[in-house]
Amino acid sequence: MRTFRVELGPNSHTVHVGAGILDRLGELTLGAGLAPGRAAIVTDQTVAALYAEQARGSIRKAGFEPALIEIPPGEPSKSLKMYQRVIDAMVEAGLERTSPVFALGGGVVGDLTGFAAASFLRGVPLVQVPTSVVAQVDSSLGGKTGINHRHGKNLIGAFYQPRLIVADIATLKTLPEREFREGLAEAIKYGAIMDAEMFAALERSLPAILARDPESLAEVVERSLRCKASVVSRDERESGLRKILNFGHTIGHALEASTGYERCLHGEAVAIGMVLAADLSRRHAGLQDEDARRLGRLIEQAGLPTKLPADCRNARFNKALHLDKKRADQRIEFVLLSEIGRALIHKLSFKEIAAILDAA
Amino acid sequence: MRTFRVELGPNSHTVHVGAGILDRLGELTLGAGLAPGRAAIVTDQTVAALYAEQARGSIRKAGFEPALIEIPPGEPSKSLKMYQRVIDAMVEAGLERTSPVFALGGGVVGDLTGFAAASFLRGVPLVQVPTSVVAQVDSSLGGKTGINHRHGKNLIGAFYQPRLIVADIATLKTLPEREFREGLAEAIKYGAIMDAEMFAALERSLPAILARDPESLAEVVERSLRCKASVVSRDERESGLRKILNFGHTIGHALEASTGYERCLHGEAVAIGMVLAADLSRRHAGLQDEDARRLGRLIEQAGLPTKLPADCRNARFNKALHLDKKRADQRIEFVLLSEIGRALIHKLSFKEIAAILDAA
Repeated sequence: MRTFRVELGPNSHTVHVGAGILDRLGELTLGAGLAPGRAAIVTDQTVAALYAEQARGSIRKAGFEPALIEIPPGEPSKSLKMYQRVIDAMVEAGLERTSPVFALGGGVVGDLTGFAAASFLRGVPLVQVPTSVVAQVDSSLGGKTGINHRHGKNLIGAFYQPRLIVADIATLKTLPEREFREGLAEAIKYGAIMDAEMFAALERSLPAILARDPESLAEVVERSLRCKASVVSRDERESGLRKILNFGHTIGHALEASTGYERCLHGEAVAIGMVLAADLSRRHAGLQDEDARRLGRLIEQAGLPTKLPADCRNARFNKALHLDKKRADQRIEFVLLSEIGRALIHKLSFKEIAAILDAA
Repeated sequence: MRTFRVELGPNSHTVHVGAGILDRLGELTLGAGLAPGRAAIVTDQTVAALYAEQARGSIRKAGFEPALIEIPPGEPSKSLKMYQRVIDAMVEAGLERTSPVFALGGGVVGDLTGFAAASFLRGVPLVQVPTSVVAQVDSSLGGKTGINHRHGKNLIGAFYQPRLIVADIATLKTLPEREFREGLAEAIKYGAIMDAEMFAALERSLPAILARDPESLAEVVERSLRCKASVVSRDERESGLRKILNFGHTIGHALEASTGYERCLHGEAVAIGMVLAADLSRRHAGLQDEDARRLGRLIEQAGLPTKLPADCRNARFNKALHLDKKRADQRIEFVLLSEIGRALIHKLSFKEIAAILDAA
């Protein structure tokens, strides 16, 4: 088991990464200082069928009495309606201020459960138990929680840190191929924006990763989370540095929002966004052509899309881009690369963005 | 104008109290470091008719472009449905992460707006502009925001500090008599739990306060908020000391919840709760009979109720008491007085509480 600490002052917490550690969830939760008693596991129906009993058994053994709260799988569950259902179930479960809530699942479960835990009784302890690549390499760490609004992704939410993250690599073996590959987009992102060595390692070990070799996966998960932790520790609330984590996300979010979160997975949208951001980086941040090509190649070899579908460049897409919440004035703050492993923030006008989209 | 600072580390902020200072709202907001641009004023229809133009004019002069978001007055507006409407209006107003949201109104407006500001874009700057006695002496300070659930008050919410509080005493002159008196319950609470001198001053100056003498009111508001600030500074998230602020609230909340938030005002419920808590204090915390009588007398002279209506002691009331979120195990944490000006936390069983309710 690989263990490290995320330094966030009073919100500091531990991360465990390893194969098969779901069986130790209860013990690790006690180790994080959470008190046995009532609890809840929030999960989606797909994950529930695979891992709910294992998780429940482990935390029961440690003295917790967990209620199981199931939601339908998929991005549409990040809704105010589903939020309300989870809150209702927490009330029914009789949760108290000290009762831990376990988010067992992928990014959707983590985001929705995180916001519910942040706002139920003004905050109950949250344990992230990510079971997808996206959640294990990225979304379970950093405290961003939220749900979607019809006008945009994550418009409602909170910064709320988990008390513990337990990433069991073994849960990745049951992930459908498309979702597995989706998650690699975020790992590639960490290499691209801040860790050239990791980027090169990904280029070398991609075949082993795609074959879901546990040791290679644990390495990717740990290294990605350590990258993210080092950023989040310095800028918990995204007032500056943390914005670089949005590399590929500005266009990605607009694509997701304008297609009703149904046409492509989050990581696929981010993959397309990263390729376009690399084009913008060549023009506006001095990124070498070869580095842009390396990024495009790695994304492609991971089985991810690299091109914005032509029919997606429409008025809805433009409107979603306008609403992007990283916009501080009439220009959009874009994350660009000056080289592999080094990101910067650059304000671009809609015209400059459109020029790249037109050329792509 | 009376000005002081609430020390909350990175969440520290300023409080201004004075007659007529709504005209300076814009200038004071700039002084708090908030940037001109898009903004929103959330208020209820009653307050809007009286003060929205004055507030809007003042902040416009300072360079803000505020949207006006009106909600129906009253406790039922602290609902998930109204929360959703406020969020929708914020999206429509095109608010950005730096756009201030002004909560212009009483406790309901402050709580609902506070939670909306806490969760929109994971947090936008909040300015509390309390216009009721309850809000000016108590609820605008401390960062507690929230909405109600059918099973209990404030079950959903966040700890979220305002960037500024501007309490204009002049707005109290239009308050209906019942609401005005309601707010005095919270001021009496501060005297009772932590400021014996203030309690004695309230006994002396109650006639001037009830006649709404501006100087007397400013004194009560400032002194109450300073009391609260000193507690909140030491325990922002209610892990210990801050619990004493719930004096009178455990029974008060149960009464409100079990009567559908319609039969009595919050301060009236707290007044009844304080009298019963004084009875419990005589039996369990050594409060002298004379001190309990002084508290009852002051509450009565303020025109507030002192007795739990007989028909309210029913199964719904007991159920609401069981759900109280201050309950850490099967007993309820109660705030009791050992003397006027000194509070302590004591765990009581339902049996011990019932004994006092039966005797009352």
